[in-house]
Amino acid sequence: MNDTQGIFATSTRQVNIPVAISSRHVHLTQATIEQLFGNQYQLRVDTVLNQPYQYEAMETVALIGPYGRIRNVRVVGPARAVNQIEVSRTDAITLGIKAPVRESGDLIGSPGIVIEGPRAQVQLGTGVICAFRHIHMSPADAERLAVKDRDRVEVSTEVYNRGVRFRDVLVRVSPDYQLELHLDTDEANAAGLRAGDFAVLCKTGNSDLNL
Amino acid sequence: MNDTQGIFATSTRQVNIPVAISSRHVHLTQATIEQLFGNQYQLRVDTVLNQPYQYEAMETVALIGPYGRIRNVRVVGPARAVNQIEVSRTDAITLGIKAPVRESGDLIGSPGIVIEGPRAQVQLGTGVICAFRHIHMSPADAERLAVKDRDRVEVSTEVYNRGVRFRDVLVRVSPDYQLELHLDTDEANAAGLRAGDFAVLCKTGNSDLNL
Repeated sequence: MNDTQGIFATSTRQVNIPVAISSRHVHLTQATIEQLFGNQYQLRVDTVLNQPYQYEAMETVALIGPYGRIRNVRVVGPARAVNQIEVSRTDAITLGIKAPVRESGDLIGSPGIVIEGPRAQVQLGTGVICAFRHIHMSPADAERLAVKDRDRVEVSTEVYNRGVRFRDVLVRVSPDYQLELHLDTDEANAAGLRAGDFAVLCKTGNSDLNL
Repeated sequence: MNDTQGIFATSTRQVNIPVAISSRHVHLTQATIEQLFGNQYQLRVDTVLNQPYQYEAMETVALIGPYGRIRNVRVVGPARAVNQIEVSRTDAITLGIKAPVRESGDLIGSPGIVIEGPRAQVQLGTGVICAFRHIHMSPADAERLAVKDRDRVEVSTEVYNRGVRFRDVLVRVSPDYQLELHLDTDEANAAGLRAGDFAVLCKTGNSDLNL
């Protein structure tokens, strides 16, 4: 039993999970895009992201909160069914907004904000969140890591003088997903991480891998 | 032996360490204060801090880096022998400066910056750091927590949905110190912490307290 656990821990530990760092960004509906940028406006692709069909658009907006403004906030395409504004907690404090830590799409009760584009300012009634940290992975990765969709796991990073173990990391499994730990800029900076660094799983469900 | 360890772990675990969050700030020499604010200028006390003789001054400066500027950066008094600028990594990226993670006073090879006050801009050749996270404590606290000056320990925080275990936390012991975990804004925000929240020690030197 101990031997089996030992082997399991070692093999899991060897999986390096690439770190992706999400800067503040907005997902917009086509209606909001048209209000901000003009009638029948279509987002233009700047950089294709690793997760399926997602891209950084060339378009940016400004976020205007009660205490402050943040310019040059990237729109992530394609257009979505619901507006969603993802900021770090540092950003939320700059703006003067209490953004809750939420999964993508879980926007009930989240605060609104003013978004400014070249054609207009749009007041959103809801939609500002700090993203719940999460790992995207395929079913094959999930099997290899011995986790399942919606598990809450712990992940360890080892940058010199800034080692961190993140608890409350959500597992998201889909055949379309590529293995990637998504952290916001506060989380990445607290751990001294850069894009392309790696994290390792150190606790899955009830099993502690003793890292 | 197990019983003893169990009792020890429990008693250590019960020590709540108050969290203090350091926003970006500058420590200045009297010469730099006079360049920025005027001849024979004396800092005015705004808020007395918990650590001995330290205070937030009423004076603020702007930091100007190659990529950006940050206004309203607090001066922490009293005047010191060496200029030291403490920023978060988020701030360092905004400014366009590669600030190393360093203990207070360890400034060799750190980058410089332009500081702007009401009377002048001053170019510093060195002095910008991200503070190494640390716990201030008295000798009595150190004995109670079974640690000693300059130990590197691990500390756990448990805010809902943002639990974090910080490794690489430096212990600083002095009769003048009040028990306090000092984190920067990136670290506090990554863990969802507010000033007045608490952390607990979860690993001291070679002993893991199994939190």
